[in-house]
Amino acid sequence: MPLLTRIRGPRDLDRLTLEELDQLAGEIRTFLVDAVSKTGGHLGPNLGVVELTIALHRVFESPKDKVLWDTGHQSYVHKLLTGRQDFSKLKMKGGLSGYPSQAESEHDVIENSHASTVLGWADGIAKANQLMKRDDSHVVAVIGDGALTGGMAWEALNNIADAKDRPLVIVVNDNERSYAPTIGGLANHLATLRTTDGYERFLARTRDLLERTPVVGRPLYDTLHGAKKGLKDFIAPQGMFEDLGLKYVGPIDGHDIEALESALARAKRFGGPVIVHCLTEKGRGYQPALQDEADRFHAVGKIHPDTGLPIATSGADWTSVFGDEMVKLGEEREDIVAITAAMLQPVGLDRFAKRFPERVYDVGIAEQHGAVSAAGLAHAGVHPVFAVYATFLNRAFDQVLMDVALHKCGVTFVLDRAGVTGTDGASHNGMWDMSILQVVPGLRLAAPRDADQVRAQLREAVAVEDAPTVVRFSKGAVGPAVPAVGRVGGMDVLREPGTDTPDVLLVSVGALAPMCLEVAALLDRQGISTTVVDPRWVKPVDEAMAPLAAKHRVVVTVEDNSRVGGVGSAIAQALRDAGVDVPLRDFGIPPRFLDHASRAEVLAEIGLTAPDIARQVTGLVAKLDGLPPSRLRSSGRTPTERSAADAVDSVQPARD
Amino acid sequence: MPLLTRIRGPRDLDRLTLEELDQLAGEIRTFLVDAVSKTGGHLGPNLGVVELTIALHRVFESPKDKVLWDTGHQSYVHKLLTGRQDFSKLKMKGGLSGYPSQAESEHDVIENSHASTVLGWADGIAKANQLMKRDDSHVVAVIGDGALTGGMAWEALNNIADAKDRPLVIVVNDNERSYAPTIGGLANHLATLRTTDGYERFLARTRDLLERTPVVGRPLYDTLHGAKKGLKDFIAPQGMFEDLGLKYVGPIDGHDIEALESALARAKRFGGPVIVHCLTEKGRGYQPALQDEADRFHAVGKIHPDTGLPIATSGADWTSVFGDEMVKLGEEREDIVAITAAMLQPVGLDRFAKRFPERVYDVGIAEQHGAVSAAGLAHAGVHPVFAVYATFLNRAFDQVLMDVALHKCGVTFVLDRAGVTGTDGASHNGMWDMSILQVVPGLRLAAPRDADQVRAQLREAVAVEDAPTVVRFSKGAVGPAVPAVGRVGGMDVLREPGTDTPDVLLVSVGALAPMCLEVAALLDRQGISTTVVDPRWVKPVDEAMAPLAAKHRVVVTVEDNSRVGGVGSAIAQALRDAGVDVPLRDFGIPPRFLDHASRAEVLAEIGLTAPDIARQVTGLVAKLDGLPPSRLRSSGRTPTERSAADAVDSVQPARD
Repeated sequence: MPLLTRIRGPRDLDRLTLEELDQLAGEIRTFLVDAVSKTGGHLGPNLGVVELTIALHRVFESPKDKVLWDTGHQSYVHKLLTGRQDFSKLKMKGGLSGYPSQAESEHDVIENSHASTVLGWADGIAKANQLMKRDDSHVVAVIGDGALTGGMAWEALNNIADAKDRPLVIVVNDNERSYAPTIGGLANHLATLRTTDGYERFLARTRDLLERTPVVGRPLYDTLHGAKKGLKDFIAPQGMFEDLGLKYVGPIDGHDIEALESALARAKRFGGPVIVHCLTEKGRGYQPALQDEADRFHAVGKIHPDTGLPIATSGADWTSVFGDEMVKLGEEREDIVAITAAMLQPVGLDRFAKRFPERVYDVGIAEQHGAVSAAGLAHAGVHPVFAVYATFLNRAFDQVLMDVALHKCGVTFVLDRAGVTGTDGASHNGMWDMSILQVVPGLRLAAPRDADQVRAQLREAVAVEDAPTVVRFSKGAVGPAVPAVGRVGGMDVLREPGTDTPDVLLVSVGALAPMCLEVAALLDRQGISTTVVDPRWVKPVDEAMAPLAAKHRVVVTVEDNSRVGGVGSAIAQALRDAGVDVPLRDFGIPPRFLDHASRAEVLAEIGLTAPDIARQVTGLVAKLDGLPPSRLRSSGRTPTERSAADAVDSVQPARD
Repeated sequence: MPLLTRIRGPRDLDRLTLEELDQLAGEIRTFLVDAVSKTGGHLGPNLGVVELTIALHRVFESPKDKVLWDTGHQSYVHKLLTGRQDFSKLKMKGGLSGYPSQAESEHDVIENSHASTVLGWADGIAKANQLMKRDDSHVVAVIGDGALTGGMAWEALNNIADAKDRPLVIVVNDNERSYAPTIGGLANHLATLRTTDGYERFLARTRDLLERTPVVGRPLYDTLHGAKKGLKDFIAPQGMFEDLGLKYVGPIDGHDIEALESALARAKRFGGPVIVHCLTEKGRGYQPALQDEADRFHAVGKIHPDTGLPIATSGADWTSVFGDEMVKLGEEREDIVAITAAMLQPVGLDRFAKRFPERVYDVGIAEQHGAVSAAGLAHAGVHPVFAVYATFLNRAFDQVLMDVALHKCGVTFVLDRAGVTGTDGASHNGMWDMSILQVVPGLRLAAPRDADQVRAQLREAVAVEDAPTVVRFSKGAVGPAVPAVGRVGGMDVLREPGTDTPDVLLVSVGALAPMCLEVAALLDRQGISTTVVDPRWVKPVDEAMAPLAAKHRVVVTVEDNSRVGGVGSAIAQALRDAGVDVPLRDFGIPPRFLDHASRAEVLAEIGLTAPDIARQVTGLVAKLDGLPPSRLRSSGRTPTERSAADAVDSVQPARD
């Protein structure tokens, strides 16, 4: 990589010739395939923006100018050009983030990768520049065609177009797909723009034709020429953007650095809002990606760089368990339809879509519309299942509350990637759903603990026709079955305490069941008898919960969700309401954003491990016994020689 | 009202002549002004849609066809035509809802009035119709031009345009304003459509011109005529909608019933998605409304029908206290800007806007963009204050979390109409903010109890530059000042218990302070000593809370917010974390949607009154003393002759 290694910052690009820039682009592609195949990460999107990123950093002066990326997974090239070329620990603890990161570089701004936000950020920064008279600072926002389907992008365009004197460059990175091919009227419109002959060529032809008839030709030509905007619409209907009041430049070949620089430089000089429409190819230069219609190279795990084949094959994952069951449900019930927000394959609906193409709706990157149109579908007698990453449902909170729940619509939300997801960092953890959805009246929320429960609870969910239901599960491989040994109310007992006067009621939520059983085993070694119960439906709190809790000395809840307002809080409130004032301790994710690292590393860091929890519970029980936390109580049960805390520490040191 | 009183349902319209329909429109306007001036309600929007509603119900067959209203406050005429003509208790307990209501009529569908949802509902219902082959069922959605600025509308348009064979009629009710004049590129585009000469007229003129030059004229005319869509864009740039793939009809005079019927009938027959662009006049036919530029007749209290002047003038309200302080802050700090989502006047920013027109941003009905652009502004060194109704911030939850908080942006959200608002019904109560915002890391939330605290806490909020801050207050008149008698940590003590061994720590949130003092007085009469504390900042929980709680036997929290995950839950968790296992009872709004009624009626119904709370707390204390709830404990304090519960009951009977 003779050229790439010499690039320490954007200004190092200035002295390269066009030929060298093309060579640099090639080096970057080689680097990306090599690096990402070793670590996993977003490959396709970054291969598509190599030339665009080079051109952006040639024309704009970051960080004085702000170069903003929507859905930051397309920022790898940006990282390479701004001093970050060690990708060996990409997305791993201590390594580069998979998204822009202000802590990493002064060239980075937007850290989250919830789509469609960049235009709002750009509008805000441009407003501040104008207000503070920073006339030499520019803002350029890169947004994919897919992200333009999101409502936030529209809201921003409407605002940006309103101020003709506020400079702002929007680069539409048009590769005709988000995860899946971009859908909707906008996509069709962009396709028209892509295939148009262009205004300039038409104008020349018309002039030639008209000039042969001097009587009327000249005046008509002048009229047409004067009415430039109208004529442009006639020939190349970039109308939509221009009708809004945004200057449109394009379409530009997004892999032609010279053309890109020329267009971007013109846009930078324009002095108002302008759209530069660039056509790029996702996965450019990498055959396995280009040949894959399902866009599996959008984000990959570790792969063989030559073939693109995955190195490790994992077992069944939560997503496919859900996806397979959906096909069965679809066969059994004609009134079940599926909704996805531009993520058909990642949420496991691809098989359903193949089997029932007329019963699946890809709404674009538009969670709000996913939820509201689901309300309409349900109102009209259909049962929609909207499968979406847990973190993205936040976008539709108001619609779940005010459209689905208020109108008592039978809509099932399936939340994939719930809980700590790890390497994608702060914005991709699904750690808020079991908190914010608690407030939604009537909503029922299931957290299945294993594959069998995913299937069973999905079926229970779609049977509810007068309220929203939610089924949430983790990312990745699903663990072995965790059998119930009993039932209390609607709750599964996973472990009996082995005594009539048990100490601890341990409430296990979802996939954490195996860990909770491990906690119980550790407590057992301290002579602390523990009941482990899985509520299955965590909202509403089961009526059997309070009476069951009253039989124990301590209630402990464990959930893969923010502690704030989560399942533990809900159970605590239910106990208060029932007048059961048994002490409760709730374990979950602390109220802060989590840095990227593996799921196991994150869980260890926040103390969501069996030894950590067992140690804390042991301390609590000891305190109830009036003993110092390090001494085991001896309340008529088997004493041990060692203190509980010591015993637990010997298993694994605490990290939080 | 000879005609109106004969209309029992939409089909009664069929036999009226055009002249009679015009007469009916007049009767309806008279009825509306008369009825709404007595009760208060939404006047302007309904006066604007009289003819449109008549035409809709003539052309479509509700309820087989679905006539859907965005922001349901424009549905009064619809109510009158569908069997509901008793407006005497409009928005009052037991009376008609101010919005559509499925419980009221089979002609109603969408009950909430969060804007921009109707197209999503329509898309869902149209999809279900297609799927279930209900070919004779139509869907027509009425949406204002203001609501089109909302992102959900865009997401829906993009989806609707995607299915050319799915019938759906969109009526754009274009009155050039939402609350305030509609902003942005879209508004300018609609203005162009309104003022255009029209395609047909141009075509005729061009043909005349070209036919005088036979050599080239005919072929060029044919070319132009053949390229109909392009030519239409050239002349009348309805481009935006048509570019998306939506057939466009209009503009239509929204007060010409015959023209409306003709356009709607054509649209109904079209067999695909079609937009009918209607121009209406908000407040039509009512001089006081037409002459008022600030659109104060959008929604009114009781008014004199002739003059439009308000009958009761109330004292200072929360909104104006905030608005006045914003002007002062604006004078002191040049870096403070204000943001509103199309509600400049209702949120009290009109004075700020007049004083600092260049420092206020109306983003349209676009809460998402309000929050994200605020993040951009803050990142670039400006401090934005986004004033918005509490219920509408739900729309921007993801943006508050992922854009503002994750990026540590100093943005202040001012939530007006927080808590129970009453007559506007389920969708307008601001009862979720103190729950869902609890999960946002770093966010600080203030609930000022009186005008002084609004001013003080707003100042404290805008001083925070590295995290989101929230100041939330109630609707309506602000009560008298509630002075602090002491301070514990950052919390104001409103009442000392008068003993060293107090019983109850009563945590009062926001405007409920006077009621909490009343509770304390009632408890005092039972010999129960009570400390009343106002945390001021309810998030994070003050560090002094747990030690203070530990000095009491019971902690009671009272908040004007959902009980689920609210301030009470947060305090309970803080106490658990501190190992303070003092019993806690949390009072707030139960987890259900609230029917419309006055604020006082709602509070009484849900038990948020001083006597209700005092009675329950008395029972709890008695239980701790080992007494039956109806017997007062006698733990060394003054006994009384009557039971606590009896005493409280004598003040006011319980209703929940």
